[in-house]
Amino acid sequence: MAVKFSIEGIGGLPEITKGADLAALIVDATDLADGDILVITSKIVSKAEGRVVQAADREQAITDETVRVVATRQYEGGVTRIVENRQGVIGAAAGVDASNAADGTVLLLPVDPDASARALATGIRALTGARVGVILSDTLGRPWREGQTDLAIGAAGVHVFDDLRGSTDASGKPLSVTMPCVADEIAGAAELVKGKSSAVPVAVVRGLGRFVGDLDLPGARSIQRPAERDLFRVGADEAYNEGYRDGFDEAQSEGPLAAAE
Amino acid sequence: MAVKFSIEGIGGLPEITKGADLAALIVDATDLADGDILVITSKIVSKAEGRVVQAADREQAITDETVRVVATRQYEGGVTRIVENRQGVIGAAAGVDASNAADGTVLLLPVDPDASARALATGIRALTGARVGVILSDTLGRPWREGQTDLAIGAAGVHVFDDLRGSTDASGKPLSVTMPCVADEIAGAAELVKGKSSAVPVAVVRGLGRFVGDLDLPGARSIQRPAERDLFRVGADEAYNEGYRDGFDEAQSEGPLAAAE
Repeated sequence: MAVKFSIEGIGGLPEITKGADLAALIVDATDLADGDILVITSKIVSKAEGRVVQAADREQAITDETVRVVATRQYEGGVTRIVENRQGVIGAAAGVDASNAADGTVLLLPVDPDASARALATGIRALTGARVGVILSDTLGRPWREGQTDLAIGAAGVHVFDDLRGSTDASGKPLSVTMPCVADEIAGAAELVKGKSSAVPVAVVRGLGRFVGDLDLPGARSIQRPAERDLFRVGADEAYNEGYRDGFDEAQSEGPLAAAE
Repeated sequence: MAVKFSIEGIGGLPEITKGADLAALIVDATDLADGDILVITSKIVSKAEGRVVQAADREQAITDETVRVVATRQYEGGVTRIVENRQGVIGAAAGVDASNAADGTVLLLPVDPDASARALATGIRALTGARVGVILSDTLGRPWREGQTDLAIGAAGVHVFDDLRGSTDASGKPLSVTMPCVADEIAGAAELVKGKSSAVPVAVVRGLGRFVGDLDLPGARSIQRPAERDLFRVGADEAYNEGYRDGFDEAQSEGPLAAAE
């Protein structure tokens, strides 16, 4: 059990453009050792992968990135779409974001954040000889609670869960349902030093080597709960409206007899 | 902007019982300085406050702690209730938990976690002269994502949000909707050293003094989104069923004419 760890923001990276060798740039910017975990803002991965579209195409880009609409909210001037995107992440606008993108453009999420994380971990391990883990983070809102936290949308070489199922508490009682999502906790912690400007897009976590592992560990996709097992798979209004239509149709299909009962 | 911070778990506290002077015990266990943030597992606060009931009364305790049922899930042997509890927190079983409680008992959350946090921050500041912040944490599941993270259910002397609304990104574009919930991120980070056993119930965060402030700052209650503004205020099944009943009733009330249309 680690009793102490630290997180350091890594600045000084050049502006990232398509084709940038992020692994090499990160290795140049900091010293890495076995057990370190790099938390990389997904935006710079998107930039390196050329996942940029014109801002005028933003709404179409959101549609293209969406696999399932979860909820919508009207606001003055438009509609916010909470969707499951192609990466399996549920969030506003499918992760399509104008902040820290070049003027007139918006950034899409990496096509496959776990694959991007794996490529980065592989490259950084090869360049340094250090057994590091990599987490790609994005800033996401959540139900029930105001504000956003950074979460893990890609991961490689790191255990995304601290699986305690079957272990016991201090008094010997089983912690049967406890499975902390350490990848999300680490991504959120790194936000505290990275902030929201692009000046510090990477953080190094030192002291949590117990969570570092092989490159073929399950990635951040394994954090995403399948919709069929999710009590909140669609918004309350969407579910209500679907139920209303079904109930209305059912009553009508039963015809006058039902109405007379 | 902090570029580095550290989190250290504090062990060595005695078993906490009703009436324990937590502020004094924590001050004895570690050195504190201006700008430190203490993350305290809410369970030891519950124990100090005597928020313990017999395990046989667990279901009744959950009912008593509930102000609103958000969703329910049947499982073999019972029903899991996702509820908004008296503290305003949405989670399973209203925070009533047997782990790390004495045999045959379960722990309830503190009655008013923000007030508990304020009392602790006040006491610790008085004992040490150090301007510290206090966060009370609990382990909570969430929609859409597997596993749990620790979140802030009480806070005092610390900014729970890093309110960036109105500030700009590196290229000068406004970060209009960005308001990271740093209290939740700090609580989650502390879980990484505290773990789930009761041996390390407190962590000290050093290096994030920019988030420490006056004791009358808004507490963790301000993180909770009011239900009327929450797109996920009830579960999808609950909303569907309510809609179905309303739609069915509406169609029937329209009578044979409607059915014949």
